[in-house]
Amino acid sequence: MATLMQPESAAIPKTMKAWALFGPNDLRAVEKPVPTPGPGEVLVKVNAIAICGTDLEIIAHGLPAMIEGELPFNGSFVPGHEYVATVASLGEGVDEFAVGDRVTVEVHAGCGRCERCRHGMYTSCLNYSKRAKGHRANGFTTDGAFAEYTVNHINTLVKVPAFMSDEEATLVVTSGTAMYALDVLGGLIAGETIVVTGPGPIGLMGAACAKALGATVILTGTRDNRLALGQQLGADHVVNVRNEDPNEAIKRLTQGEGVDLVLECSGAPNAVNEGMLMLKRGGKLCLAAFPKEQVTIDLAYMVRNNIYMYGIRGEGRGAVKRGLALMAQRKFDATPMVSAVFPLAELPEALRTARERIGDAIKVVVKP
Amino acid sequence: MATLMQPESAAIPKTMKAWALFGPNDLRAVEKPVPTPGPGEVLVKVNAIAICGTDLEIIAHGLPAMIEGELPFNGSFVPGHEYVATVASLGEGVDEFAVGDRVTVEVHAGCGRCERCRHGMYTSCLNYSKRAKGHRANGFTTDGAFAEYTVNHINTLVKVPAFMSDEEATLVVTSGTAMYALDVLGGLIAGETIVVTGPGPIGLMGAACAKALGATVILTGTRDNRLALGQQLGADHVVNVRNEDPNEAIKRLTQGEGVDLVLECSGAPNAVNEGMLMLKRGGKLCLAAFPKEQVTIDLAYMVRNNIYMYGIRGEGRGAVKRGLALMAQRKFDATPMVSAVFPLAELPEALRTARERIGDAIKVVVKP
Amino acid sequence: MATLMQPESAAIPKTMKAWALFGPNDLRAVEKPVPTPGPGEVLVKVNAIAICGTDLEIIAHGLPAMIEGELPFNGSFVPGHEYVATVASLGEGVDEFAVGDRVTVEVHAGCGRCERCRHGMYTSCLNYSKRAKGHRANGFTTDGAFAEYTVNHINTLVKVPAFMSDEEATLVVTSGTAMYALDVLGGLIAGETIVVTGPGPIGLMGAACAKALGATVILTGTRDNRLALGQQLGADHVVNVRNEDPNEAIKRLTQGEGVDLVLECSGAPNAVNEGMLMLKRGGKLCLAAFPKEQVTIDLAYMVRNNIYMYGIRGEGRGAVKRGLALMAQRKFDATPMVSAVFPLAELPEALRTARERIGDAIKVVVKP
Amino acid sequence: MATLMQPESAAIPKTMKAWALFGPNDLRAVEKPVPTPGPGEVLVKVNAIAICGTDLEIIAHGLPAMIEGELPFNGSFVPGHEYVATVASLGEGVDEFAVGDRVTVEVHAGCGRCERCRHGMYTSCLNYSKRAKGHRANGFTTDGAFAEYTVNHINTLVKVPAFMSDEEATLVVTSGTAMYALDVLGGLIAGETIVVTGPGPIGLMGAACAKALGATVILTGTRDNRLALGQQLGADHVVNVRNEDPNEAIKRLTQGEGVDLVLECSGAPNAVNEGMLMLKRGGKLCLAAFPKEQVTIDLAYMVRNNIYMYGIRGEGRGAVKRGLALMAQRKFDATPMVSAVFPLAELPEALRTARERIGDAIKVVVKP
Repeated sequence: MATLMQPESAAIPKTMKAWALFGPNDLRAVEKPVPTPGPGEVLVKVNAIAICGTDLEIIAHGLPAMIEGELPFNGSFVPGHEYVATVASLGEGVDEFAVGDRVTVEVHAGCGRCERCRHGMYTSCLNYSKRAKGHRANGFTTDGAFAEYTVNHINTLVKVPAFMSDEEATLVVTSGTAMYALDVLGGLIAGETIVVTGPGPIGLMGAACAKALGATVILTGTRDNRLALGQQLGADHVVNVRNEDPNEAIKRLTQGEGVDLVLECSGAPNAVNEGMLMLKRGGKLCLAAFPKEQVTIDLAYMVRNNIYMYGIRGEGRGAVKRGLALMAQRKFDATPMVSAVFPLAELPEALRTARERIGDAIKVVVKP
Repeated sequence: MATLMQPESAAIPKTMKAWALFGPNDLRAVEKPVPTPGPGEVLVKVNAIAICGTDLEIIAHGLPAMIEGELPFNGSFVPGHEYVATVASLGEGVDEFAVGDRVTVEVHAGCGRCERCRHGMYTSCLNYSKRAKGHRANGFTTDGAFAEYTVNHINTLVKVPAFMSDEEATLVVTSGTAMYALDVLGGLIAGETIVVTGPGPIGLMGAACAKALGATVILTGTRDNRLALGQQLGADHVVNVRNEDPNEAIKRLTQGEGVDLVLECSGAPNAVNEGMLMLKRGGKLCLAAFPKEQVTIDLAYMVRNNIYMYGIRGEGRGAVKRGLALMAQRKFDATPMVSAVFPLAELPEALRTARERIGDAIKVVVKP
Repeated sequence: MATLMQPESAAIPKTMKAWALFGPNDLRAVEKPVPTPGPGEVLVKVNAIAICGTDLEIIAHGLPAMIEGELPFNGSFVPGHEYVATVASLGEGVDEFAVGDRVTVEVHAGCGRCERCRHGMYTSCLNYSKRAKGHRANGFTTDGAFAEYTVNHINTLVKVPAFMSDEEATLVVTSGTAMYALDVLGGLIAGETIVVTGPGPIGLMGAACAKALGATVILTGTRDNRLALGQQLGADHVVNVRNEDPNEAIKRLTQGEGVDLVLECSGAPNAVNEGMLMLKRGGKLCLAAFPKEQVTIDLAYMVRNNIYMYGIRGEGRGAVKRGLALMAQRKFDATPMVSAVFPLAELPEALRTARERIGDAIKVVVKP
Repeated sequence: MATLMQPESAAIPKTMKAWALFGPNDLRAVEKPVPTPGPGEVLVKVNAIAICGTDLEIIAHGLPAMIEGELPFNGSFVPGHEYVATVASLGEGVDEFAVGDRVTVEVHAGCGRCERCRHGMYTSCLNYSKRAKGHRANGFTTDGAFAEYTVNHINTLVKVPAFMSDEEATLVVTSGTAMYALDVLGGLIAGETIVVTGPGPIGLMGAACAKALGATVILTGTRDNRLALGQQLGADHVVNVRNEDPNEAIKRLTQGEGVDLVLECSGAPNAVNEGMLMLKRGGKLCLAAFPKEQVTIDLAYMVRNNIYMYGIRGEGRGAVKRGLALMAQRKFDATPMVSAVFPLAELPEALRTARERIGDAIKVVVKP
């Protein structure tokens, strides 16, 4: 038993405060049992958690394709996946972490037994959502962290250095998505030029990380204050597409040559076609966002110009650890992305702030 | 001077028979000067040339995006790019080939001086169509081989073994496109399952090459005789999509698991969306064909399932040499793909046979 | 309990015959409890097992660097890792396999929780030999298959088609090592030229697989009958290094150009230096064997010629599945590699036959 | 004619001052004709040039393996390859650069017509040293830049931003070697731990670039002042191997885990064996230096631990452009590496300063 091994865990209560999803946009404060970590897992006490656009989606609509059975509108499921926490107790066989370690997280623990996991592609796990097979995607298919405690597989944890605040550390997960994108786009991007479309949290992190890695960064968007923040985070050039045609702007900024890479973070319906036109022949485009509806795409252009396009899910290939490394080395200061902090008890207000972008909220953080 | 070095070239005439493009579908027999190879180039005497669907496109519509200046409707441009030929004379400094060598070709000689060529991506040359910079795409932006002679940069040549007939060797270029596709899809595909959609020449070659490399191959199409030929070339399973929903068929054939790879060779408007549904999560899709119009695509599905999609142009990464290796080792017998052979003088009839698929023509070959 | 779920397993006895290692070259027939598969594992009944050179090493000397604690000379450890078997019972949660499935194996089940396993490099597991962490390397750090039964994690199993004999299927593991080597050497090797040095089992399989994948294969060795078998398996050229200097031979066979790849399977002290000289500038060399002593190497040559050198352990990156695919598609007939078959009771005689190469034994197979 | 196109070039003199190599360590000031750039080439006026250890080697011993014919001791050959210069005139067809552009250089212009160049591996050109085939390695096989003017193929040039001094810009070539090493080691190294062995110019640049890309850097060496500079450039930890066993130090600094990567820049005979022991299983080692003699290596360790080892020549894969990007973005300040500046007329004194490391010289710069 974990309690035998770890006297510290004596302090762990039997139940905890959590927000469970009862129906679309029906999130209620409940008292739930504190979960027990299994082999290879740990229980963590949540320090702080950021709200992601996907949380708003899940809370409002669920994500049926991802979820087996009755989830998420079952009066039990707890959303929330971008968090920093402190290890509270260790599951069987865990010595990789110690009680008291402060950690941030990847969302996906693959099953470890399908072909994709076997080959390191754990965000493409073929047993996605199958808890019995070992898959976990906290806040998606297993309980997340709008709660006092949650459970993580050790594969999803990275230690956070002491000097980084909880608020800042909640942003590491987003940097992981950005780093996964930059990884599939080539990894070593120093000296290349990249357009990041859409200055939401992933786009801003994409701009910051790309610049940290030595690329020349052009950030496009529709709101000047977001673009200004992007510049502060490292973008070399910003383009407000309300004022200038983005493709003309790219031509102007690249002397007509176009760019090497596009990281699409806007989800705009025309983003792929526009992005392809920005690319040099043989360029690459990564989709970290997508429109809700199907969109028309010029496949002929894609083929004739040898363009590769990557859809990415989550933060694969150790991207969270890589993003944390950049942030821990102070390559950029992401803290201005934290717009507001709420106590866990005020989660609904925090969600409303995020959803309605009150005060141009970028990242809203909740602290239990 | 080349003539000093090579007495054989004394036999090279001053002029030659060739088919020049005067306007859309207006191809005329002309007498043109035999071209002179520059440094690093050779003059080749055409033995045989296959008609590609792209030839029909160029002859009917041109390919304006690819071509600088007045090409191709200028009364001089000679189309045709899938050929086997014999080296007739050597440009300055060439000792890599000898007069008399029988060769087949890649279409693209990159400029050798842009960023893409510098890094081996010569089918994405940034000086595409700029002859003055050194770029050549024979039959696209420089004279091709519906003629007695043409010029090739040595980078585009591979030697053909003596035991392979001219007719068979014209198919090597098509195998190159297939091999380029299989390269971007992972290269080492033994043990993986691939769907090839569309049993045209590239699809048939894709099925043959994928099988030769050890994959399990499912070929989909609408014509039973083509599918039967695909089976003969190596496809493990064929699906006539007129008789069975392709996605249901893939499920049936893969016990519901889906496939690892899709090589799209049909150009059908629904091919990408259908192909994505065939894939396992984390699968890859290569476009070797494309529809004429823009098509709607489910980007959300692509992102959520970590799908990568590759547009490919031409036969990059040495793919022609690789395809030739498979054919020269008799991994499969592609000769049934040669449906008809015409003399060069009857090119219009040959083109009509290809265009109208007379006798279910797959590949129509022309011999000067 | 597995027995509740699977009435078939009622037939599984409590104990089994096995060969346990009591000391260097002290292997004794014992009666051991039939092991119980854990979660994600299965019990398999061994059909046939091939003897590998590494088995002889382990039995004679142990492999101290690989093994924690008292293994292997503990009177309990069972060696043997190249086998085909039939699933006899399923551990908790296993539905990927059914009782009765015939399977062959990879040696390594990574821990699934270290950085290497997380990223698909399970043969480099950082918890190598730590059973408590989940690592298994059957016949190395966990019990192998010189026994009637053994346990495998499902990650290490691939199904064998019915038409393949048990004897042939024991060779699949060796093909996996060859395919791992060819994977690190580039994967898509069609059209390239490779030297395989040393016609032992891995070298012969390397030649066969490389040829199956479309390479031109030169096999070097010292015994004509082995070289002849290599030719039968696919080698285009063979060089008996007792008769001809291997580097001179490579020059002769490649018109002085050298080769693209070297797969070193001889373990000869001069193999790396000789192999580097065979390579074109920018070539690659994979070590699937190694000499017992440290050897001198010309690093200056390696650097000046941009040579990459890969040490490989085991059968990573799904190589066993890939090798099986080639063998199941009858790309080559490996059965002549099976030199002799013994009953399990005669394992000592079988080992002696392998060790002393009685009758030029290549692979000696044992059947319980 | 170039002179017609560029009136500026009227100022180009007919002859220039240069240092030609007459014999081992016999470098003499001569008056040579200013060379004429060919097609795709430019003439550059040298602003500043750094002395590399390889220059000292070439001047003292030549590099026979690299050079065809009588070079380098012919009374004409001009060494020197790490320079910043200003474009003085354009060869035929060049519009990628303009007269007056300030540039730094890669050493290698591949032939553009061999298999390696075709596939982007231009530092492994199979026509190495064959000027007639188009290969250039300035300062190695073609005239370098211990002179007022030299010629470069445009493929070897990158533009230097105005704010970077000539002295600093001479260091970009060295950063290119470091970036090539980091590219072969994985490229995206953020979050990984790397040991750089040997704080010479390449090692110091390796430490600086690795840190700029987000790695944790451990630098080992024998001189405290060099290690201190390494720390200033970005190394997280330094180890003076005279004071502490390097492997013990690595264990201490990594909690016994070892590192992911080793970049060997010392050329010490024991560097490879020591480096392998520093690595985690599955780690990678790049050789940017080498000992003069052959050294003994533990290949068994390499194989058993799945270690990959890369010899690199020059600055491949666009590494100079990437290194320049990091330096131009002020990721680190390399200028302390410039130890002394001499006029071209005092080259022998400059060389002596470099060779004898007078004043602990790291990089000695010469300015015509």
